[in-house]
Amino acid sequence: MRALVKTAAQAGLTAMTCPDPTPGTGEVVIRVKATSLCGTDAHIYNWDPWAHSRIHPPRIIGHEMCGEVVETGPGVTLVRKGDYIAAESHLTCGVCFQCRTGQAHVCRNYRILGVDRDGSFAEYVVLPETVLWKTSPTIPPEFASVQEPLGNAVDAALVEDLTGHTVLITGCGPTGLFAAAVARTAGAATIIASDVSPYRLELAKQVGADYVLNAKTDGGEQLAAAIRDITAGEGVDASLEMSGNPAALHLAFGSVKNGGRVTLFGIPTGPITCDLANEIIFKGIRVHGITGRRLFSTWYRLAGLFKAGLNIKPVVTHTFPMSDFARGFELINSGRCGKVVLFP
Amino acid sequence: MRALVKTAAQAGLTAMTCPDPTPGTGEVVIRVKATSLCGTDAHIYNWDPWAHSRIHPPRIIGHEMCGEVVETGPGVTLVRKGDYIAAESHLTCGVCFQCRTGQAHVCRNYRILGVDRDGSFAEYVVLPETVLWKTSPTIPPEFASVQEPLGNAVDAALVEDLTGHTVLITGCGPTGLFAAAVARTAGAATIIASDVSPYRLELAKQVGADYVLNAKTDGGEQLAAAIRDITAGEGVDASLEMSGNPAALHLAFGSVKNGGRVTLFGIPTGPITCDLANEIIFKGIRVHGITGRRLFSTWYRLAGLFKAGLNIKPVVTHTFPMSDFARGFELINSGRCGKVVLFP
Amino acid sequence: MRALVKTAAQAGLTAMTCPDPTPGTGEVVIRVKATSLCGTDAHIYNWDPWAHSRIHPPRIIGHEMCGEVVETGPGVTLVRKGDYIAAESHLTCGVCFQCRTGQAHVCRNYRILGVDRDGSFAEYVVLPETVLWKTSPTIPPEFASVQEPLGNAVDAALVEDLTGHTVLITGCGPTGLFAAAVARTAGAATIIASDVSPYRLELAKQVGADYVLNAKTDGGEQLAAAIRDITAGEGVDASLEMSGNPAALHLAFGSVKNGGRVTLFGIPTGPITCDLANEIIFKGIRVHGITGRRLFSTWYRLAGLFKAGLNIKPVVTHTFPMSDFARGFELINSGRCGKVVLFP
Amino acid sequence: MRALVKTAAQAGLTAMTCPDPTPGTGEVVIRVKATSLCGTDAHIYNWDPWAHSRIHPPRIIGHEMCGEVVETGPGVTLVRKGDYIAAESHLTCGVCFQCRTGQAHVCRNYRILGVDRDGSFAEYVVLPETVLWKTSPTIPPEFASVQEPLGNAVDAALVEDLTGHTVLITGCGPTGLFAAAVARTAGAATIIASDVSPYRLELAKQVGADYVLNAKTDGGEQLAAAIRDITAGEGVDASLEMSGNPAALHLAFGSVKNGGRVTLFGIPTGPITCDLANEIIFKGIRVHGITGRRLFSTWYRLAGLFKAGLNIKPVVTHTFPMSDFARGFELINSGRCGKVVLFP
Repeated sequence: MRALVKTAAQAGLTAMTCPDPTPGTGEVVIRVKATSLCGTDAHIYNWDPWAHSRIHPPRIIGHEMCGEVVETGPGVTLVRKGDYIAAESHLTCGVCFQCRTGQAHVCRNYRILGVDRDGSFAEYVVLPETVLWKTSPTIPPEFASVQEPLGNAVDAALVEDLTGHTVLITGCGPTGLFAAAVARTAGAATIIASDVSPYRLELAKQVGADYVLNAKTDGGEQLAAAIRDITAGEGVDASLEMSGNPAALHLAFGSVKNGGRVTLFGIPTGPITCDLANEIIFKGIRVHGITGRRLFSTWYRLAGLFKAGLNIKPVVTHTFPMSDFARGFELINSGRCGKVVLFP
Repeated sequence: MRALVKTAAQAGLTAMTCPDPTPGTGEVVIRVKATSLCGTDAHIYNWDPWAHSRIHPPRIIGHEMCGEVVETGPGVTLVRKGDYIAAESHLTCGVCFQCRTGQAHVCRNYRILGVDRDGSFAEYVVLPETVLWKTSPTIPPEFASVQEPLGNAVDAALVEDLTGHTVLITGCGPTGLFAAAVARTAGAATIIASDVSPYRLELAKQVGADYVLNAKTDGGEQLAAAIRDITAGEGVDASLEMSGNPAALHLAFGSVKNGGRVTLFGIPTGPITCDLANEIIFKGIRVHGITGRRLFSTWYRLAGLFKAGLNIKPVVTHTFPMSDFARGFELINSGRCGKVVLFP
Repeated sequence: MRALVKTAAQAGLTAMTCPDPTPGTGEVVIRVKATSLCGTDAHIYNWDPWAHSRIHPPRIIGHEMCGEVVETGPGVTLVRKGDYIAAESHLTCGVCFQCRTGQAHVCRNYRILGVDRDGSFAEYVVLPETVLWKTSPTIPPEFASVQEPLGNAVDAALVEDLTGHTVLITGCGPTGLFAAAVARTAGAATIIASDVSPYRLELAKQVGADYVLNAKTDGGEQLAAAIRDITAGEGVDASLEMSGNPAALHLAFGSVKNGGRVTLFGIPTGPITCDLANEIIFKGIRVHGITGRRLFSTWYRLAGLFKAGLNIKPVVTHTFPMSDFARGFELINSGRCGKVVLFP
Repeated sequence: MRALVKTAAQAGLTAMTCPDPTPGTGEVVIRVKATSLCGTDAHIYNWDPWAHSRIHPPRIIGHEMCGEVVETGPGVTLVRKGDYIAAESHLTCGVCFQCRTGQAHVCRNYRILGVDRDGSFAEYVVLPETVLWKTSPTIPPEFASVQEPLGNAVDAALVEDLTGHTVLITGCGPTGLFAAAVARTAGAATIIASDVSPYRLELAKQVGADYVLNAKTDGGEQLAAAIRDITAGEGVDASLEMSGNPAALHLAFGSVKNGGRVTLFGIPTGPITCDLANEIIFKGIRVHGITGRRLFSTWYRLAGLFKAGLNIKPVVTHTFPMSDFARGFELINSGRCGKVVLFP
């Protein structure tokens, strides 16, 4: 089969022919219909220090995908040949405290598809049946593939109920945009989105943001003032920090009302100096660190959100044949895209 | 001023001229712009045993309203002349355990507008400023007036998050219809509504029910089977019992999935025989008794729901001048209406 | 090995020699150190209609136990020979909605040890490693064995936080007594317990009940008045209904304060007539149906409760060699016991 | 009356004679039986920059107190002459979003006793009846007076249930010690406390800490390793950061398990550099900023905790006649004390 392989400890990926995978006990071979590019993939492609420390070539990368079951190994009972599935990318251990108490999304020993085992940038991928998610055939592959990061956005947005509440989303990368779409479907009262990119703010409008704020042209004080105006001085009920940017983080904390909540999802590139007294303590707020997706309640909820009319179409901005992967990574590095999907 | 008065301990209401009210300390006089009919008003109009035990004529009745502040008494600071307001109908004591712990909606000593003091079926009504709710001028009076029962529906529907979840609503009277509209705005995955009235099921469709089930033509077994089909055998995540009808109650319990939740809002006319083992215990569900509206978080949330696009237009089916009140009560007694609003 | 077997569809159990069990893949053989009698076992022993409909002889019964791992089958990784373990009695399917969303305690397809497969009234029992719970050696076998029903009590009591709250426990069978002990350790402000048996009320005192009420000598009105007195007219924050008795249930609902919560755990023998309006709706309370134990958060929490000083000693009233099982069942049928433990 | 007055914008307090206070409408005069010293009082005594910016002399300071109602102003209905009361020190506005939604502890406009109006370091103090808390006569004045800071500890500790859970408390000043006592009463499984002062660690043992860690003699790595050992590598379920110290904060975040929770209560003296990715996000934890006390649910709960046996005796280390106030402040500045109580 054709696959994109990190063949050596350096930048780039190699499109090459690899052996077709075979399923072990409890495993399934999937013909990949669509597989999307994540920031993590870009880190590996660019071979940054994190990738250097974590990836052991050769490795087929890629962890966001959907496809069709084409072969089932011994003991498989949950899916069968022909099923249309997406996959949870975290292979959790099942035996740690977190896994045994319904918190497998923070499993202490999880392994990641396309990082710790061969991934989905390929014609075929093999996966344990336990991570498969049967997907409605009404959802086209380019949307089915992005359910994994969309699940992050579901948890970031809905860790507390948003219905009727005012929300600030700092950072309009794909997950921030997904969060805006989720907030719209969830009946948020007012959605305010900020980013440095006019391109992405335009996408934010398309998924339902009521107000978009340009953090490049306006300083933090101006943004804060704009949010005070929009919320009649009250501040927002919820801030979703989706960028990892320090200024955005302070805007998120500064804009939430006393007693409100802040989601932290965006990964900062380094330590951040925080005024915990004024940003958290005196405000009496709750802060939620969000990583991964609640297994599998988030996937069920996402299926429900699609039924409720969740519109992520504006976020999936580009699709390419897998062989054009380099164009995809260029787009991601440029920031002028939402989600980029490859068709193997 | 003109007002509708229960002048004697018998059925009916008398339209008559009463003295204009004057405000005491902390009170406000409101010119009523719209005032809507509630089931409670119908009980009083029809003079049923509950009304007989509770109402002491003479009494101006009515407790759902909106209007304009026209006079403020001493010490009033929250509103001023000209403000467009609706009112919380429960005048809570402020000093019981419930009031002091943020649960004033279950105050042990509350008094009700139009029951325990003169109400809003009048050109003017006097109210303490603490129960007033400033309403956006973008909301027309016939919608602003019904915010009080709409708040019941908000609490019934959203006592737990509905976003992405499947919900059954048994009973499509006005509050059930409101609950369906709220569930739609909140991003419920699938909304199933049941009632005995085709007229009301048609309204349920208009506010967003995906499936409507006629409990008159179909037996309980057929309804249960239909819900199993719709939910692929899983049952619903949430049942909202809005009718008080025993068969509906059993449908609500029977249809919720293990680990789900049931809201009880509809008031049964008498005791109901329940199979607590199979309906609650073995299912491991949560049951929420809902009464009144959380003060004032529900009102804030409702304002947010309107911003999110909440559509209650189909539920407000009839408007009359106040002098035509008898037609309104006839409609309510017939069941062929949603909400009936009077204009004084 | 020696075991207690339901050999035919009639009352009684037969002590007999059975083949030693052997472990399958992922299974473990345990030498049973202690195994305790549950009401379910008494139903089977007495051969009531439920037992008749559910049990298919021959069957070794018993599902509460602790012991030592003596043999491990292929693929076992979580435990090893010599481990001191207790066992979750519910073998859950792992694939239903409930299992996949952290709610395995309400799995739709669970099987029960000693009901659907051979149980622990035996010298040896075989179990999948996934249900085993490593137990601290500081906990003696007669306490380790009863962790399963104790877990029910943990969930019944702590489904909402009890610290600093006033609690009524109706029914002082073993699980009610365990719930009282848990409430004591959890820092409940005041614990009120009711039962018809002076023997059991005496045990309730020993595990920490502040007040005990005799439901046999006093009528419901007297009990309700006593609770009002104890709570200065407020009612209790939480009622735990552990008996299944209709009068106790009405006492539980009637005594909880507005906005409080009621746990339903005791299984009624038939339908119960409820005044839902006054017992649930107008009170604005939450009702929690409790069954099984949250997997495995309850087991972890229970380990923590033992560290915190949980004292269940008064509840384990009788221990016998397994051959004296008939005396144990006589005691259970008489009601003059707490927990009865057998040593194989 | 005698009172301690900040007479000028400089360090120190002046014991002097002031006019006896008289009650306004809804107000009450209280004869102070005990009044305790808070860190805030020390800031004012020492006249640090915060005090300089906030206090406008002349001002009687002090906000932790208990006493007896000796005179009631017009309109007072909740208390009467002779009542034994303590007081909530935050006088909340009653009309902001937070106040109207049951979150008055984060009122946007609150005023503080002894800061924004004359306080309790005096023979008499006048207070609105709405902040009074009737206290059981079984609680001696030196304990009744400290209920205000004890309420902080209740919220810090119990914002999520601690029963059966493992908890780390960083910082054993009076509120940290109170939190340890609360955790003990709440049935925490294991309580680990850290501080730089052996004196305070000894007090921590007395209120129930299972393990005490000296942060002065041991480095952060050693403390972290000790906590890993105590928790068998799992980390704690909850960290309560009660010191405001950066090293303690990082210990609190570093020691909590994935999916756990951290309370932030201690006020840092300046910004702190945080590794949000590893300390919050990848751990999937919840962080709760705690300030003030939930009105009035915390006061009710505290009354319940006293009934449950809460032991704060070791924390109230010193009592003096009010005239010896200087010794009290010296002790606080030295750190060799728990709570210091003055008797006017």
